[in-house]
Amino acid sequence: MSLPSELSDRLRGILGTRLSEIAADRDHHAQSESFHRSAPPDAVCWPDSAEEVAAILSACNDARVPVIAWGTGTSLEGHALPLRGGISLDLSRMDRVEEIRAADMQATVQPGVTREALNTELRATGLFFPVDPGANASLGGMAATRASGTTAVRYGTMRDNVLALQVVLADGRIIRTGTRAAKSSAGYDLTGLFVGSEGTLGVITELTLRLHGQPEEVAAAVCAFDSLDHAVECVSATIQSGIPMARIEFVDAASARAFNLHSGSAMPEQPHLMIEFHGSPNAVREDAARFGEIAAEFGAQGFDWATTAEDRARLWRMRHGAYHACLALRPGASGLITDVCVPMSHLPAAVHAAAADIAAEGLIGPILGHVGDGNFHSLLLVDPANADEVAAAKRIATRMAERALAVGGTISGEHGIGVGKRGLMGAQHGEGWELMGQIKAALDPHDILNPGKLVPDRN
Amino acid sequence: MSLPSELSDRLRGILGTRLSEIAADRDHHAQSESFHRSAPPDAVCWPDSAEEVAAILSACNDARVPVIAWGTGTSLEGHALPLRGGISLDLSRMDRVEEIRAADMQATVQPGVTREALNTELRATGLFFPVDPGANASLGGMAATRASGTTAVRYGTMRDNVLALQVVLADGRIIRTGTRAAKSSAGYDLTGLFVGSEGTLGVITELTLRLHGQPEEVAAAVCAFDSLDHAVECVSATIQSGIPMARIEFVDAASARAFNLHSGSAMPEQPHLMIEFHGSPNAVREDAARFGEIAAEFGAQGFDWATTAEDRARLWRMRHGAYHACLALRPGASGLITDVCVPMSHLPAAVHAAAADIAAEGLIGPILGHVGDGNFHSLLLVDPANADEVAAAKRIATRMAERALAVGGTISGEHGIGVGKRGLMGAQHGEGWELMGQIKAALDPHDILNPGKLVPDRN
Repeated sequence: MSLPSELSDRLRGILGTRLSEIAADRDHHAQSESFHRSAPPDAVCWPDSAEEVAAILSACNDARVPVIAWGTGTSLEGHALPLRGGISLDLSRMDRVEEIRAADMQATVQPGVTREALNTELRATGLFFPVDPGANASLGGMAATRASGTTAVRYGTMRDNVLALQVVLADGRIIRTGTRAAKSSAGYDLTGLFVGSEGTLGVITELTLRLHGQPEEVAAAVCAFDSLDHAVECVSATIQSGIPMARIEFVDAASARAFNLHSGSAMPEQPHLMIEFHGSPNAVREDAARFGEIAAEFGAQGFDWATTAEDRARLWRMRHGAYHACLALRPGASGLITDVCVPMSHLPAAVHAAAADIAAEGLIGPILGHVGDGNFHSLLLVDPANADEVAAAKRIATRMAERALAVGGTISGEHGIGVGKRGLMGAQHGEGWELMGQIKAALDPHDILNPGKLVPDRN
Repeated sequence: MSLPSELSDRLRGILGTRLSEIAADRDHHAQSESFHRSAPPDAVCWPDSAEEVAAILSACNDARVPVIAWGTGTSLEGHALPLRGGISLDLSRMDRVEEIRAADMQATVQPGVTREALNTELRATGLFFPVDPGANASLGGMAATRASGTTAVRYGTMRDNVLALQVVLADGRIIRTGTRAAKSSAGYDLTGLFVGSEGTLGVITELTLRLHGQPEEVAAAVCAFDSLDHAVECVSATIQSGIPMARIEFVDAASARAFNLHSGSAMPEQPHLMIEFHGSPNAVREDAARFGEIAAEFGAQGFDWATTAEDRARLWRMRHGAYHACLALRPGASGLITDVCVPMSHLPAAVHAAAADIAAEGLIGPILGHVGDGNFHSLLLVDPANADEVAAAKRIATRMAERALAVGGTISGEHGIGVGKRGLMGAQHGEGWELMGQIKAALDPHDILNPGKLVPDRN
C-alpha cells in the first residue's frame, strides 16, 4: 500500500525529508524483537516536536490513516507493528532530557529518551530512574506498555513512576495530564489511563518521571536451590516477611545452563535466586541477614556475593541478557515468551505447573522472572517451521494464562498485549474489555491510533 | 421534587422498605461534613448487593434520574450532595469484609466497610490498611475520592492501595477491573480510572485492597520550631534525604493553640512537626537519629517522644481532631478548607505565602497538613453571615490554588473536587478537562451518575 497522495503531500509539508516512503525504512518498522511481524507501514515519520506530532495526527485523522507510535522496537509482543498499514511514527529524534529537578526528584523528558540515557544524565545528581525492563527501551514506549522489570518489587512499575504526561490526541489536540505534585485528587487519572494504553488513545510527547535517591549501599548475590519449588517458596516467604528487596529474580536450571553457555559463568545447573538490597549500610546488612535466614530454611547454598559495582553490573547484565542467552540454547529456534503474574501465595504452584506442562509437551522452555511481584516468564523454544511444536507452545502458553486467571492473576505482568495476547483479553476482563473499547471509541472515533490492538474490534 | 411514580414503584419492587421518600432520611443525605449543602434527594436507597445496585441504576438510567452514591458523608467538598435531585444511594448496609488473604496481603471488602472496621478485623493478622484520611470514612468513598492522609508519604494514596474493583456502570452492567496480581500490563487501567472519579463513572460495589505488614517497631514524636519557615524547610530537607518517614505532619502555631484548647495538650504555641517512623527496631533508631540531625539544623526543640501505643494513639487522635479543634477557635464560625499540593521544593514558599495572605486579609486560618507529600490545608474561619469575610476566604483560597498551579501543583491533594473546587478544574487541566467530559459522556450517556460534579457541563 502507499499513502494517499494528498496526505503524503501534507505530511511532506510538515516534515520535509523526515517523511520516508522508501522500502528500507518501512521494512525496519515492520520488525520486532520477537517473532511477530507485519506488512510494512506505508511511510515512516520522524517528528521533532509535539506540534509536529499534532500536525501529523490531525492530517492522518482527516485522511482516516492509521498512526502507530514507534520507540526503540524492543517490544516482545509486537505493539508497534502496523497491522493495518498507515504511518509509523518514529519518536527517536525526540530524545531530549528537558529538565532535571533534583530537589523535587523529578525529570521531564521527551519520549525518545532511553532509560539508560536518562540514567547517564542523572549520574551526578545522586538520583536514578529505577524502572528497568532489561532492554534499553525508550521511556515513551515504556510508559505506553506499562513496563516494569527487575526493580518493580521495590520501586514500582511505570504506573507508579510517571507523574505527568503531554499527550497528542487522535484529532491533534495537545493535552497535559497529571501534575508535579506527589499526589492529586483533582479529577480522572488521565496519566494512569494513557500509561499502558499501547498507543491506542494518544501519542505521548513528554513525560514527567519520579526519580529515586541512589541507594547509599547496594548488595547483590546469587544463591542456588535444590529444587524449583524450594526457590520459589523462598521468594514467597521473603516477600511475606516484608524485607524490602530491591530485586529478587528466579532463574531455573535451564536458564543457569544458558547463562553458562552465553556469559561464561559457572553456575551449577540448578534453580537460583538473584537478589539485591538497597539502603543504608546497616539496613542492607540487616535485610541481607534476614533474607539469609529465610533462604537457609529452604536449603539455599553457595551464596555468591557481588561485592563490587563491576560484579553487580556483570550479574545484572547476565540477567538482562537472558532472552538472548536462552534463545541460544536451541540455535535457529524462535521463542514464544509467556508473562503471567499471580498473587504471591499462588506463585509456587503456578511455576511448578508451568514446568511440568513444558516437560510433558517435550519442549525446551527456561523459566525465569521477577518473582517478587509474582511475575514469571517461560521462553518456549520452537522450530517455527514445525507446526506441531508451535501448536504445543501455544497450548502451554494458553494453559499458563488460564491457570493465572483462575487464581485472580493476569495474562501479562509487564510485556503488555500487543499482537500476541489480544485473544486472551476477553477472558481476563469480561465486560470490562468492552468498556475499554468504549473509551477508545470516545477518544479516537476514527480508530486511527494503533488500530487492531488492545481493545475489541469495532462492530 | 419527588420520584416519577413508575420509577418509585420499580425501586420499591427491588428494595421494599429499603427505599425511603420520607423527609428525615432525605434531609440527612443533603448534609455534609463542611458547609456545603444542597436540596435533599428525592429518595434514599439502601441496597444490599451489587445486583441490587445494578437494578437501581438500570431503573434510574431508563428514567433519566440521577444517582449519587453515599458512603459516610464525611467528604469536605460536598461530593455526595444531590445537586440535581434523584436518588441518594446509601451503601452503608454493604459493610462486609468478604475475604482477607493474609498470605497475599490483600482484603476484599464491600464499599460500606469503614477503614477502622477493616483494621479492627485485621488486628490478629499482623497486617493493616494504612490509608488514613482522619475521618472514619467508608472504603468505597475513600476510593471514589482518591483519599490519602497522614500515612500517604510512606504507603501511598488510595490510587496505590486499590488493586481491583467491582463497579456497576450507569446502565446496570457489572464489571470487574484490575487483578489480584501485584502488577499487570493487560489493558487500560480501569481501576485507576474509577479511583478518584467521585461517583461520576460508576458505583463501586467491591474493592480489593493492598494490605501492609504491621511495623515491628513504631516511634512517634512531636517537636517545635521557632518559625513556620524553619519547620517547613525541615520537611523539605527530610524528604529529600530519603528517610522513609511513615508520617510527617506540619501544624502551625494557631493549630497548636487549637489542640491545647480542644485536647487539653500543652504544646507551645509555635509551629510543630509530628512525625512517625515504622520499621525494624534498628531501622527506626537509625531513621529517628538521622531525622534528629536534620531537625536540629533547623532549630527543632522540645522533642516529645510518644513511647507507648497509648501515647501515639493520643497524638494522632489529636491530629485527626484538628478540623473540629480548629473550628472551635472561633465558635459559630464556618470553615472553608483549602487543599493544595505542590512539588516539595516549592513547599516552604507556598506555606509562607499562604500564611502571609491569611494575615493580610485579617482572618483566622490555621495551617496544617501532610507536608511530606507537599500537601497542606488552611481552615479559613468565617462568619457565614458576613459576606466580606466569606469573600476574603474565597480570595485567599483562589490565590493559594493559583500559586500551586503556577509551580505545577494541584488544587486538591486529597479532598477531591466535589462542589467546592469544580470552578478551578479548567484552570488546572485545560483541554484535559474536556477529555474527562468525553470519557464521562461515553460511560454515562444520560448523565445520571452524580451529575454536575467533576467534569464540565454538557452543551
